[in-house]
Amino acid sequence: MKDLIPVAGNGLLDRRAFLRGGAALAAAMTGYSVKAEPLADAPWSQEPGSLVEPYGTPSKFEKAAVRTLSNPKGEPRTSHARTPHHLLQGTATPNGLHFTISHAGNAEIDPPQHRLAIHGLVKRPLVFTVDALSRYPMVSRFTFVECGGNSAPMFSPEPIQASVQALHGLASCAEWTGVPLSTLLEETGIDPKARWVIAEGADSPHLSRSVPLTKILDDAMVALYQNGERVMPGQGYPMRLLLPGWEGNMNVKWLRRLQLTELPAMSYYEARTYAPILPNGKAYRFYFIQEVKSFITRPSVGIDMKGPGLYEISGVAYSGNGRIAKVLVSADGGTTWAETALQEPVMSKSFTRFRIPWQWNGGPAVLQSRAWDELGNVQPTRAEIIAVRGQASRVPPVTVFPSQHYNGITSWGIEANGGVRHVYA
Amino acid sequence: MKDLIPVAGNGLLDRRAFLRGGAALAAAMTGYSVKAEPLADAPWSQEPGSLVEPYGTPSKFEKAAVRTLSNPKGEPRTSHARTPHHLLQGTATPNGLHFTISHAGNAEIDPPQHRLAIHGLVKRPLVFTVDALSRYPMVSRFTFVECGGNSAPMFSPEPIQASVQALHGLASCAEWTGVPLSTLLEETGIDPKARWVIAEGADSPHLSRSVPLTKILDDAMVALYQNGERVMPGQGYPMRLLLPGWEGNMNVKWLRRLQLTELPAMSYYEARTYAPILPNGKAYRFYFIQEVKSFITRPSVGIDMKGPGLYEISGVAYSGNGRIAKVLVSADGGTTWAETALQEPVMSKSFTRFRIPWQWNGGPAVLQSRAWDELGNVQPTRAEIIAVRGQASRVPPVTVFPSQHYNGITSWGIEANGGVRHVYA
Repeated sequence: MKDLIPVAGNGLLDRRAFLRGGAALAAAMTGYSVKAEPLADAPWSQEPGSLVEPYGTPSKFEKAAVRTLSNPKGEPRTSHARTPHHLLQGTATPNGLHFTISHAGNAEIDPPQHRLAIHGLVKRPLVFTVDALSRYPMVSRFTFVECGGNSAPMFSPEPIQASVQALHGLASCAEWTGVPLSTLLEETGIDPKARWVIAEGADSPHLSRSVPLTKILDDAMVALYQNGERVMPGQGYPMRLLLPGWEGNMNVKWLRRLQLTELPAMSYYEARTYAPILPNGKAYRFYFIQEVKSFITRPSVGIDMKGPGLYEISGVAYSGNGRIAKVLVSADGGTTWAETALQEPVMSKSFTRFRIPWQWNGGPAVLQSRAWDELGNVQPTRAEIIAVRGQASRVPPVTVFPSQHYNGITSWGIEANGGVRHVYA
Repeated sequence: MKDLIPVAGNGLLDRRAFLRGGAALAAAMTGYSVKAEPLADAPWSQEPGSLVEPYGTPSKFEKAAVRTLSNPKGEPRTSHARTPHHLLQGTATPNGLHFTISHAGNAEIDPPQHRLAIHGLVKRPLVFTVDALSRYPMVSRFTFVECGGNSAPMFSPEPIQASVQALHGLASCAEWTGVPLSTLLEETGIDPKARWVIAEGADSPHLSRSVPLTKILDDAMVALYQNGERVMPGQGYPMRLLLPGWEGNMNVKWLRRLQLTELPAMSYYEARTYAPILPNGKAYRFYFIQEVKSFITRPSVGIDMKGPGLYEISGVAYSGNGRIAKVLVSADGGTTWAETALQEPVMSKSFTRFRIPWQWNGGPAVLQSRAWDELGNVQPTRAEIIAVRGQASRVPPVTVFPSQHYNGITSWGIEANGGVRHVYA
């Protein structure tokens, strides 16, 4: 059984082991596969099933596969809805489970009354209806969106016992379709003095962010569709700005205005909420890119081990800089590493699913994943990030409270009883 | 304006026209883009929006974007739910809108009680729980599923005036994740005499189909996830057989049994319902592959033209044989053709979105699309199919009633008033 020879410490197997044949997995999974027996007809095999619906919904047995809400009653504060990564597979996030952050609920926009204005340092200011935009040439692309504050609990001095949903649930991935902004700015023309584009939403806080014109002309779009259907209310229906790989809130939802300017606006959300403060008291003025990152979704907190034997370790990796180049996994807390299989096609600035087989011997283990992108950027360890940004402190005087752009390694501690805990390692 | 020089009759433009710059589209779209004006604050910009939900749902303004149901009350007959292609974009079909056909509603299976048995000509019969399967190595792939009876209205002697949803709505595309059957059959071992695999569902009709073992070992999987989340009830929750590119009903839903045999079962659904009868009285014994096909989704019946000017023509193409190689579009009923842009990445046995700009002069036009796959297969004209299969006839004596595997060209007649009709051309 050469295929089951470990390639790294604590039982990690070659990523191609399952593809080579000959691995007697069932033998290693005693209690899960048993000899065939006559098939009983369960109740659902003896009577007609439930109605087919105009808009299908998940099984009633999947009630746990929902987003967790930080503000379920819609009180006058920000609402977060987090993606349950531990219950998902593949790379697409279904629209019902795409994360959202909303500063005043979801604006309920009647499309025929909505307008998108492009003005400022342009040669010909224009106002577009949804219908007008729908006639323009479109592009589709898979890309992730991630909140700059995703993974903020990782700055805590002690590992917070929470699921991957609670830790990293403010990132999701979808196929977006819309009109490239380069096309729309050809329509308006660009004043040579323009350097920035101020994007503003039609939601009541009118969230606005300044975007360098270079990014707008590179790969930005006005997205009208999400995974095939119209953009969801929590994603900015009927349209959002899409800036592949850039901080979530810059992908302005309920988009109503793009103003070309010489200077950034230094708006509320960019100058305050999303400007990370460093231990020395200074702050990043702008921090646009969501850097290379990965986390293991299975096993993870809440997805326990069911006895020693073979398992697949699986997770997602992504980078705002481009394609994922490789993902390594460790089962011994970072001492040794093995390369994982990446699910094709690996797409730029999109979730990439990684997988590797693991022979768990039933003893303690610490699982980690670490990703590289095609530009050579490497996901840092937690210690490397903390050294630069500090840890969160609730002890007065609060000198530092980092919460933004954590892209370091996440560690899952596997206990001898099969339980999974969040650990720092 | 060299980019707006037609490349085929009746106004078809080079597929790269929009990417080259300089096309003054707004000028050609009078009435849709107007000069900038002060932005009014609509009601939704002045008050908090709606609640963020645990499982997000489309906007209340998208009530039309639903599947059409053939059996909304769940009477004791087959239910069809068709995908609204004319309202979608990109390549993914959201799970709520994936087509489904169910012969007795959706079986409501409690996952812990479900079993998948693999038996017959195997060395070691095995029974798998959902939990056991979830430990196995998984793969993800985007692939379409299409009912063999999709597009059956195209066999009508006169063009039926119906939307692309009614004509072609029994095809959809998703990212499926599951366990390769080649892995599971390594577990059971294969008796050398085995040639077929009989797949059976746990729904009350126990729909069963015979699948050549070669296909099972090639790219078949037991799918557990659909677009990231668990397979939908209408797609066979908690698991379905996935046979990329093969006739929809063979992708057995609510999968409970795979029996390896020497001969096919000649089951009810394969010997009767899905065996196309030819004009000479003979029938295809098996017709597995969904052949190369395409249709234009925009414009199409119900998506009318809004005055002369520039439009994007867009649609989907797919082939059960592999990747789409090219898609041509005609605006003059097939006299001249222009090559369309294919949205990357073009994936094997998956929907591929094609797009081409069109300068509509306001006069009559007939739009068609025609696809080629990487094996050189070409989508036939309607006349070519009818010559072989015949047309439907309701006039007694009914000698022929073809309804299966129509993959010919669809023609949309554009009228001078902008209306779109289904025509034969």
